[in-house]
Amino acid sequence: MGSLPACATSSDRTRRNGTFTGVLGNTQSMRECFEIRATDAGGRLGELTVPRAETTVETPALLPVINPHLDTIEPGTLETEFGAEMLITNAYIISNSTDVREQALEEGLHDLLGFDGAIMTDSGSFQLAEYGDITVTTEEILEFQRDIGSDIATPVDIPTPPDVDRERAEADLETTQERLEIAETVDTGDMLVNAPVQGSTYPDLREAAGRHARGTDLDVFPVGAVVPLMNDYRYDDMIDAVAGAKRGLGTAAPVHLFGAGHPMMFALAVAMGCDLFDSAAYALYARDDRYLTVRGTRHLEEMTTLPCPCPVCTTSTVEELSALPDDERETALARHNLHVSFAEIRRIKSAIRDGRLLELVEQRARSHPTMLDGYRALLEHGDLLERTDPISKGTFFYTSHESARRPEVRRHHDRLARLEIPDSVFLTEGNTSSDDRYDASWRVLPPFGPFPRALSRTYPLAAEVPRRQDRAALEAAATGVRRLVDEHPETSFTLGHRGWPEGVLEGVPDRVRLLDLTTDLSDGEEE
Amino acid sequence: MGSLPACATSSDRTRRNGTFTGVLGNTQSMRECFEIRATDAGGRLGELTVPRAETTVETPALLPVINPHLDTIEPGTLETEFGAEMLITNAYIISNSTDVREQALEEGLHDLLGFDGAIMTDSGSFQLAEYGDITVTTEEILEFQRDIGSDIATPVDIPTPPDVDRERAEADLETTQERLEIAETVDTGDMLVNAPVQGSTYPDLREAAGRHARGTDLDVFPVGAVVPLMNDYRYDDMIDAVAGAKRGLGTAAPVHLFGAGHPMMFALAVAMGCDLFDSAAYALYARDDRYLTVRGTRHLEEMTTLPCPCPVCTTSTVEELSALPDDERETALARHNLHVSFAEIRRIKSAIRDGRLLELVEQRARSHPTMLDGYRALLEHGDLLERTDPISKGTFFYTSHESARRPEVRRHHDRLARLEIPDSVFLTEGNTSSDDRYDASWRVLPPFGPFPRALSRTYPLAAEVPRRQDRAALEAAATGVRRLVDEHPETSFTLGHRGWPEGVLEGVPDRVRLLDLTTDLSDGEEE
Repeated sequence: MGSLPACATSSDRTRRNGTFTGVLGNTQSMRECFEIRATDAGGRLGELTVPRAETTVETPALLPVINPHLDTIEPGTLETEFGAEMLITNAYIISNSTDVREQALEEGLHDLLGFDGAIMTDSGSFQLAEYGDITVTTEEILEFQRDIGSDIATPVDIPTPPDVDRERAEADLETTQERLEIAETVDTGDMLVNAPVQGSTYPDLREAAGRHARGTDLDVFPVGAVVPLMNDYRYDDMIDAVAGAKRGLGTAAPVHLFGAGHPMMFALAVAMGCDLFDSAAYALYARDDRYLTVRGTRHLEEMTTLPCPCPVCTTSTVEELSALPDDERETALARHNLHVSFAEIRRIKSAIRDGRLLELVEQRARSHPTMLDGYRALLEHGDLLERTDPISKGTFFYTSHESARRPEVRRHHDRLARLEIPDSVFLTEGNTSSDDRYDASWRVLPPFGPFPRALSRTYPLAAEVPRRQDRAALEAAATGVRRLVDEHPETSFTLGHRGWPEGVLEGVPDRVRLLDLTTDLSDGEEE
Repeated sequence: MGSLPACATSSDRTRRNGTFTGVLGNTQSMRECFEIRATDAGGRLGELTVPRAETTVETPALLPVINPHLDTIEPGTLETEFGAEMLITNAYIISNSTDVREQALEEGLHDLLGFDGAIMTDSGSFQLAEYGDITVTTEEILEFQRDIGSDIATPVDIPTPPDVDRERAEADLETTQERLEIAETVDTGDMLVNAPVQGSTYPDLREAAGRHARGTDLDVFPVGAVVPLMNDYRYDDMIDAVAGAKRGLGTAAPVHLFGAGHPMMFALAVAMGCDLFDSAAYALYARDDRYLTVRGTRHLEEMTTLPCPCPVCTTSTVEELSALPDDERETALARHNLHVSFAEIRRIKSAIRDGRLLELVEQRARSHPTMLDGYRALLEHGDLLERTDPISKGTFFYTSHESARRPEVRRHHDRLARLEIPDSVFLTEGNTSSDDRYDASWRVLPPFGPFPRALSRTYPLAAEVPRRQDRAALEAAATGVRRLVDEHPETSFTLGHRGWPEGVLEGVPDRVRLLDLTTDLSDGEEE
C-alpha cells in the first residue's frame, strides 16, 4: 500500500491534476481529497483521491459490493471488464469469519480480493443494528479496517430508519456524532474515513448531521439509512433526506448514497449531489433472476426478449439464459446488471460534461410515478441546484412541464430585477414593434418570460422549446413578467401574448396592458 | 426462392400460427400476410409473412439498408450478430450498375448479398424524383424487382415533399394512385408489393391515400416522404402524416415508416401504428463519426466516454475508437449504431407485450423538445390510439402531465355515462362516508375522476400515481366529474377534494356541492 499523506495537500493536488478553477473555487473551502471538475444542476464530475490505494477515482462512481464469501463476479473482472475503480466490502463479515479474517490481516484486502483499485469497507452498522451485538469500540473497528488494508473505512454509526419519532432520531444522531468525533482521534494513517450522515426522515436533522460531519476532519460522507426509503419507492423522501444532508455538508464534500444500487435512480441522485453509489443489487437481483434496466426491474421469467445491447443480451436469448444452470445464469444476469449500471454512470458523466443532466433526469423520471415524485422533490430544492448549476451550458431543452421549474428559469427571474429598463416597454411573444409609444420591445419566451432581445442568443434563453406549449411554461413566463413589473414600478408595460388563458394572465399584474396577438395583430406589432 | 402462393390464405395462416383472437379479429378484415399478435395504444406486435422468402418477420422490425456497392457491415453479419430478419436494398442502384445488375439477375438478390432472410427492394422513387429521368414503366420496374428475387417490391411512387401547395399534392397523389392500380395488374408471382401512401403535409390527403391503398390488393404500406419532416425535427407533423394515413388504412395494414432509422423516435412511431422501419442511418452516421443513442445523436469528437453497454462500447474507449483507421472506426460505429437500434426494437416489443409502450414513449419524449411535440401530437389522436388500446394491461403509471391525456383516461370518461348510479352520491378523494345523506360513496382518483369503489382494483383505476399531483391530473379528474354529472341530471352530487385550485374547480358543474377535505374534515367523511 502507498505511503502518501492521509490526504494530499491542495498544492500536491494542483501539481498532479492541474489548477482547479471551478465554480466553487472561491466560494467554499475545498474538501481535501475531492476535486470537482464540472457541475450541472446539483451534480458534479469529480476526482476522489484515495492515497492509500495510490489512485484517483473519477466520480460519479459505482462501487460493486463484494461479499468475501461469494464471488458472483471476480473482483479482477470487475476492474477489467466493467472498469470498476473502487469496490466496497464488509469488514464486519471479514472480522466474523476466522479464515478470511486471518488471510485479510496477513495479505491485505487487495491481495485477498485480487483487486488493484480502491477498496472501501463498511463497518457493518446495518448488521450490528439488525443483530444488536456491538461489542467493539469505534477505535477497534477502524483499526481493524486499517489493519486489513482498507482504503476508506467506516465507523459504526446508527442507521436510524425512516419515520421514527424525533426523540429517537435525535438520540441516535447524537451517538453517531460522538463516534465520528472518536473516529477523528484514531490513528488511521493514510486511510480515508467515512463520516455517515443520519437523521431519519427529518431534513433539519439531516442538515444538522451534515453540518457536524463537515466540521470533522473525516473525508467521505455517506448519506445513511436511505435503503428503506428506496425499497418503498419513496424517492421524494430520499431526495429530501439527501437535500437536508447537502445543505449541511456544503458543496465541496464527496457524498455517498449508501446502499443505492439501482441504475434507474442514479441520475436523479447525482442531480441532487451524490457522487458515490454502491451496488449489491447487481448480484442480489441476479440471484433472484431479476434483470435491471434504467427503466426498472424485470423478472427473467416474465420476459420474452432481452431489451439491451450489452454483450450478454446480444449473444443470448431469454430461452438460453433460462436453460443455464443456476450459477451460470446468475453470473450472466449479474454481468448484464453491471453492464447497464456502469453504462448509466458513463451516461451521467457525459450528461454532466454536456450540461444535460436534468434532461437525463427528465427521462428517468418517467420510469415510475415515484421517480416523478423524486424529480418533483428535486425541483423543490431549486436553491440547492442553483448554487452549482453553471451559468452557461449547451442548449436548454424544454421537455416537460417540470422543465418550467428548472434552476435556469428561477435564475432568469432573479436576474430580471438587475436589468436596465427604459420608461415604456413592449414585452411580446411576437416580433419587435415599431410603435413609438414604446421605448423598447423585449422578447417573451415561455418558460423564461421577458428579456431584452440582445440576450436572445445567450444561455438559457436560446432554448429549444416545443411548438405545442403547456400551461406550466406560460405560468412561468407570467411569473417572469410579474417579477420584472414589480421591480420597476416607474416603467409602463404592455404584454403581447399568443392567446394565454385567463388563469395564466391572472398572474400578470393589473397595471400591465394586455394585447392578445392571436386576435389583435393591428396594434403595436410589426410582422 | 420459395413457391408459396403470393399470400398465404387465412386458413393456411391459422394452421401455421394458431388462431388469431386479437382485439381486431371481429371488427376489421385482416390484411393478408399480416397478423397482429398484441396491441398497445396504436402500436402492435405482428407477424409479416413473406412467402417468397419462406419466412415470417416479427414486427416492429428494423430493416438495415444495404448499398450493394458498400458493405459497411456484411448482410450475413446483420443476420447473425444483430438478428436482422429483413433487409432493404435499392433496385434502382442495382439496375443502373451493369455488373451488379447482371449478377443479381443471374444469382438472385439473396445470393448476391449473402442473406437468408427477407429482402425488400426500393424502386428508387427518391432518386428518380431527384434526378427526374423516369424512362421505365411501373410494369418494368416491378418485373425487374421480381426477376432479381426481391421478396417485397416497390412501385415508383411520387414522394411529394412537405408543405407543397395542395394542387401539387393532389396531382402527385393521383399519379401515385394510378401506378398502384397498374401495380395490381402486374404478374408479381409470390412477391409482396408495397403500396406507398403519400399526401405531403395534408392529413386528409394522407387519409384518402391510405383508403385508396387499402382498397388495392397490394400488401405493405409505406408512409412516404416523411424524411424531410424528420430531418427538420418536425415529429409532430410526422405523427399527423402517419395518423392521416392510418385513418385511411385501418388497423389491419402493415405500415412502414419509410426512411425512418433513428432509434430515438421508434417508440413514438410504433405507438402511432408503424410496424416497419429502415435504417440507412446506422451506416451513414457512422461514416460521419456520429454515434446514435435513444436520446439523440453525438459526434465522436465531442465525446469523452461511451455511454452504452454494447459490445463495442464496453471494449473500447473514445480514444481507441478515434485512433482507428477510418474504415475500422466506421465499422465500429456502425456496429454500435445497429446495437442500440435493434435493442430499442426489442425494448419496444417487450413494452407492447407488457402494456407499457406509452411509458416508453413518455421517456423518449424527453429526448428533445420536438419529440415532446411528437408525443403531444400523438395524444391529439386519442381516438386512433383507443381503437387498438387494450381494455386491460398491467398497471397504469402516471409519469407526466401528458399521462392525463392517455387513451385510458379518455375511455374511463366515456364509460362514466354507462355506469349505474343512485340518487345521491358522494364523490371523494378521501375515505368512504357513513353520512346517510348519501346513497353511495365513490372514489375520485386523478386523472381518472370518479368511479364506484368496486372498480378500484381494475385496469386502469388501480393506477400508480405520484404523491405530488399536478394540475393536468386534477383537470382530467374534474372533467370526469363533469361527464358523470352531466350524464345523470337526476342525481345529486357532492365532491370531496383535497384542495383543488379554483381554476380546476371551475371545471366542475355548479350544481355539485364542494367539500375541501384539506380544510374541512368534519363533514361527510370517515377517516
